[in-house]
Amino acid sequence: MKRDIGALLNPKSVAVIGAAPKGQGLRGRILEFMRLHPFAGPIYPVSRSHSEVQGLKAYATIGDCPGPVDLAVMIIPAKFVAAELEACGKAGVKAAAIVSSGFAEEPGEAGARMQAELRTIAQRYNMAVTGPNSEGFASIDAALLPTFSPVAGPSDIPLLPANRSNGRVALVAQSGGMGFSFFDRGRPKEMAFDYIVTTGNEAALEGLDIVEHLIDEGKTDAFLLMLEDVKSPETFKRVAEKALRAGKPLIVSKLGKTDAGARAAASHTAALAGSYASFQALAQRYGVIEGNQVEEMVDIANGFLCWRGRLPQGRRVGICTGSGGGGVWLSDTCMQAGLEVPALDAATRAILDPLLPSYGTSQNPVDGTAQAIRQIGYVGLAGPLVESPVIDGVICIMSARSAEGLTHEKEKLKALKATAKKPILMWSYTIPAPASVEVLSEAGFPLYTNMQNVVATMRHMGDWNAHREHFLKVPDVRTTPVSAKEVVSVALAKAGPVLSEASSKPLLQAYGLAVGAKEKLVGSREDAIAAAQAIGGPVALKVQSPDILHKTEAGAVALGASNADEVGAAYDRITASAKAYKAGAKVEGVLVQAMAARGREVILGINRDPQFGPMLMLGLGGIHVEVLKDVVFAPVPVARSEAEAMIGRLKGAALLGPVRGQPAADKAALVDMIVKLSELAADHKDTIAEIDLNPVIVHNDGAGATIADALIVKVK
Amino acid sequence: MKRDIGALLNPKSVAVIGAAPKGQGLRGRILEFMRLHPFAGPIYPVSRSHSEVQGLKAYATIGDCPGPVDLAVMIIPAKFVAAELEACGKAGVKAAAIVSSGFAEEPGEAGARMQAELRTIAQRYNMAVTGPNSEGFASIDAALLPTFSPVAGPSDIPLLPANRSNGRVALVAQSGGMGFSFFDRGRPKEMAFDYIVTTGNEAALEGLDIVEHLIDEGKTDAFLLMLEDVKSPETFKRVAEKALRAGKPLIVSKLGKTDAGARAAASHTAALAGSYASFQALAQRYGVIEGNQVEEMVDIANGFLCWRGRLPQGRRVGICTGSGGGGVWLSDTCMQAGLEVPALDAATRAILDPLLPSYGTSQNPVDGTAQAIRQIGYVGLAGPLVESPVIDGVICIMSARSAEGLTHEKEKLKALKATAKKPILMWSYTIPAPASVEVLSEAGFPLYTNMQNVVATMRHMGDWNAHREHFLKVPDVRTTPVSAKEVVSVALAKAGPVLSEASSKPLLQAYGLAVGAKEKLVGSREDAIAAAQAIGGPVALKVQSPDILHKTEAGAVALGASNADEVGAAYDRITASAKAYKAGAKVEGVLVQAMAARGREVILGINRDPQFGPMLMLGLGGIHVEVLKDVVFAPVPVARSEAEAMIGRLKGAALLGPVRGQPAADKAALVDMIVKLSELAADHKDTIAEIDLNPVIVHNDGAGATIADALIVKVK
Repeated sequence: MKRDIGALLNPKSVAVIGAAPKGQGLRGRILEFMRLHPFAGPIYPVSRSHSEVQGLKAYATIGDCPGPVDLAVMIIPAKFVAAELEACGKAGVKAAAIVSSGFAEEPGEAGARMQAELRTIAQRYNMAVTGPNSEGFASIDAALLPTFSPVAGPSDIPLLPANRSNGRVALVAQSGGMGFSFFDRGRPKEMAFDYIVTTGNEAALEGLDIVEHLIDEGKTDAFLLMLEDVKSPETFKRVAEKALRAGKPLIVSKLGKTDAGARAAASHTAALAGSYASFQALAQRYGVIEGNQVEEMVDIANGFLCWRGRLPQGRRVGICTGSGGGGVWLSDTCMQAGLEVPALDAATRAILDPLLPSYGTSQNPVDGTAQAIRQIGYVGLAGPLVESPVIDGVICIMSARSAEGLTHEKEKLKALKATAKKPILMWSYTIPAPASVEVLSEAGFPLYTNMQNVVATMRHMGDWNAHREHFLKVPDVRTTPVSAKEVVSVALAKAGPVLSEASSKPLLQAYGLAVGAKEKLVGSREDAIAAAQAIGGPVALKVQSPDILHKTEAGAVALGASNADEVGAAYDRITASAKAYKAGAKVEGVLVQAMAARGREVILGINRDPQFGPMLMLGLGGIHVEVLKDVVFAPVPVARSEAEAMIGRLKGAALLGPVRGQPAADKAALVDMIVKLSELAADHKDTIAEIDLNPVIVHNDGAGATIADALIVKVK
Repeated sequence: MKRDIGALLNPKSVAVIGAAPKGQGLRGRILEFMRLHPFAGPIYPVSRSHSEVQGLKAYATIGDCPGPVDLAVMIIPAKFVAAELEACGKAGVKAAAIVSSGFAEEPGEAGARMQAELRTIAQRYNMAVTGPNSEGFASIDAALLPTFSPVAGPSDIPLLPANRSNGRVALVAQSGGMGFSFFDRGRPKEMAFDYIVTTGNEAALEGLDIVEHLIDEGKTDAFLLMLEDVKSPETFKRVAEKALRAGKPLIVSKLGKTDAGARAAASHTAALAGSYASFQALAQRYGVIEGNQVEEMVDIANGFLCWRGRLPQGRRVGICTGSGGGGVWLSDTCMQAGLEVPALDAATRAILDPLLPSYGTSQNPVDGTAQAIRQIGYVGLAGPLVESPVIDGVICIMSARSAEGLTHEKEKLKALKATAKKPILMWSYTIPAPASVEVLSEAGFPLYTNMQNVVATMRHMGDWNAHREHFLKVPDVRTTPVSAKEVVSVALAKAGPVLSEASSKPLLQAYGLAVGAKEKLVGSREDAIAAAQAIGGPVALKVQSPDILHKTEAGAVALGASNADEVGAAYDRITASAKAYKAGAKVEGVLVQAMAARGREVILGINRDPQFGPMLMLGLGGIHVEVLKDVVFAPVPVARSEAEAMIGRLKGAALLGPVRGQPAADKAALVDMIVKLSELAADHKDTIAEIDLNPVIVHNDGAGATIADALIVKVK
């Protein structure tokens, strides 16, 4: 049976355990704030010391409450929480929001132990439990705000904006202060939040469980998330995919990206931040949008809420403006963000030109000029512009400092919103009058005050839409034979902890990875010479040993031996070096290999992220990966289109294109190799700790790729 | 005699030419807005059609005004402007602000012609003239606001914040709408602006002239600039250096950075945006701070205004917070911006720990937690933190949504400001109450609402300070002999339009550029063989011709010829190829050259930016410059420290460090080469159009660098 998150967020009745009179700190404040809002069900204060709290009859224990209790809100000292949660479980309470601090975020073991106990109790009674160390939540439609956050306190602004027809957004964060700050930022923008949930240390429920519930509930159109850690990558994958399929963007800030951030996260909510590169790789797969700060994330969400179903089909932006300078600046900002600002088509210009003064222009930006914009109106410019066939979305630059002009245009704005098939975003370069925000919100337009954010929104809406369409189309098929799994499982079971190149290659071949070069494993000088002759041309010789991971460092490799004498000498030299490098190393033999044809070097690897599981790494070879750290990651298995995108994300991707008169490298062969390697890694994710194919030589287009060295390390 | 910009910005009397009654569009509005503010001198409306305007006696012509006029503000149709400006000149008017549009921003020639006329008239009468196509200006101390910008209109906020002891900022921009938007953004932050000047098409005065005047005037502490173009790079250099020496940061947005932006700029104020890379190179030299949007630039300026004289001495940030999540996020953001968030020293922790609850931490971020921050206060945390020896500046995270706590701490805040020797910046993650801004501003602290901006401010304050200290120390000495100039001038005068490698090298040598490889120019097969033998070892042969710029393409180069037969054959082959490539090409001979020792390839070049003059380019050689476009620029001459910084700015800078067991490249030799080449280019900036040293081989540390090919192209 699933935990009843509905009982948490939309309970019929609520008990406040630790309720206190007004003025008695945070404990008093929670009940005070709850009662500021018209929650329909009964609220039962539970208090050991008071028989009445803030005018409500109080009860000594949860069991004394006169009716069934769906949700218990707890703000009592940490040491009492477990016993009270147990009592709630026994009393049939379905959910609990634990606000109290003093658990795993404390130094020492005691807090962590108490927190683990909460998890056990929640599981035992199948309760939906948030916290501890949280700031509670707000369930806006239910008018239930069990939180001490000041944003739930007295305010002139209604919790939900009036007259707003746009979508709903939910915020889920571990951090209370930051979590509610999203609501604080969104309100003056007239955004409709349906839930703000802070989850603190996440002893039981994690934020993503809440998100999954809300996707299933179906009311919410976009999600703002702050993640200090991802406790279960499987949950992250499932929820992110569900959101993408449902057409609901996840706009996420991942905290603990850097060393200092991770250190701070560990002490704050005892979160283990995990590898940010792995997180990004997962996020990219599911089109998760990463934001950099509160206002930006709120602004991006606002675009989606207003224009869901009509997202940009490309990156071409039309700009209309009353400020020429603003038009120049915004054009630069669009271009720098990877958007395009194309010259406008003649037909659209012919419509616009008669509206403009001689010193205006319709080229794009369409500059109505300060003098003329008052006559033409913003709709006068944006209306024709959004119809242009060379434009995927419009940004309308305005000064919304006074609401006069916009109020005058209100009905036209509504009509424009009703008919436009592409998004139109408004950016005010002055601080807008609240009435300007209202008029635009009522007409269904988001108003931006931050130029970078309006551009980021347009970019993210288009990219997310393209990513989603692509994701929905990609069939979930494997490219490698299912039989390979069994073959490799048997081979891995027999193998030692480390598989040398010679031992690894049969496994790679089972998955259709073309190992390329002609080669033979030999046990003697004579066999080496014979093998070299059979192969023909210069050869490489490499000592094969599971005990020597760094063959070059060990002097266990010889390159370019081109006749019998050279091959023999090389054989003697490298076997002696290997012995000197590591006495007693088990040696399987010497691999004699045709020198790989020339090409561009890349590195392919599999590594297990302790939190996110096996990740495929692609890097440009040699100096690029070693010195410039030019590598990208994806969780396995990797689809073909994703492999193509990985190649594109390399900083030096152009090096795989036509270079200095050479044709492009065989990217199709590289893509094929990435996909197959990823399936191998996914099939054996519990057995294989690491795979290194370094280097892989990608030959010119059509000539394939060669794995020039390989190593597999098993999980210990 | 200098134009009297003082008469423009602080006139004793003003005429408004084209003054109109209220309600009559922009013409009526300018006089209306001027009269909202208590300007002390007389204002004379000049009008052909009215004898009284807005209650003031009006005059038919400028000459009719009853007293001397310092400033004429013009808002009349474009076609009348020149005649009126002429009349002003005759009447002894010292300055004019021309608001009228319809000049060079118009399509066709007529507007540009009229604009050129304005320039001539301004010069003839030595008048200080802004515009046309501008939005006027605001001179705050004089309470003079001749502009139709709505921000000069009725407002409850005073033009200057009360009680603010911090510095003054001026804004100078071509664009009127955007220009005044800086003031609009700064006012709610209680920032003190002394001037807002919009310069429009800049027929006569350009923005930088205004800045220079204000630096000389001495009241202004920081400058916000929007530059659509840089009309005179010499002015830019002079003003930027003057500002840096005076300790007044220039915070600049350069518009027209991208193709789309440059196209828009051209139509907006007829600005030619010029090369952004060259602009950046100049900006870097003088520590000019580039901003990305209005709010960011205003925020950066605010930091400087509050903490001038106490800027960070390094990049180590101390963070104190009541929100753990905010601390994590800010730590990440600092690290990503290149700042450090070091663990705190034991002594400071010993002071802080007793103040914190058990679930807080003093490690850095210092987390007081939401519950405890109310008791401790922000000063309680920031005070000890700013004294820490491992910290260069503090960011204090708060919720300033309510002003209660801050008001309570007001005196403590003032005391902290008085004693702190390093900057303390406040960031509120909620939208602050206006009273919070007031309290902090009065105490001398800037309050940020944007996390990226507070981090950017800390970073820029420290970097600018370091750059300035370094700049003031660098002696202005040349490293090359003055006599070289004469030698090279003579050689250049004699040379044809293109100097081959053989002809270029003596010029390079005159400037002490070690050309390195042994070489000889020969005219026959036999001499080539003899030269190769004298040089010893394998040689390169290159046909020398001013008519063949791309030798490799022409087949006019042979590498690695190592005996007489090979040298002879190579000689025949390349001379034949050169002839076949370009019949009639003038051939100076064949250069026989020792093959350069191995090393890392770079490219050095000089190119003349049509706007900014000769720029030195440094690029990593081969594929890096061709495919990855990894190049950096600096205006010539280049100081030694600047050359070092250039190398550091290469994306692949690490490739010049120790790589794959090789020692680092000889960066000192490269720096020396950059400096000398830059002096050569500076000395002959009117003669030399282009220099290409490609490749330059930088050998291992201590082994110098070799110019492996060279080409000089003269100015046509």
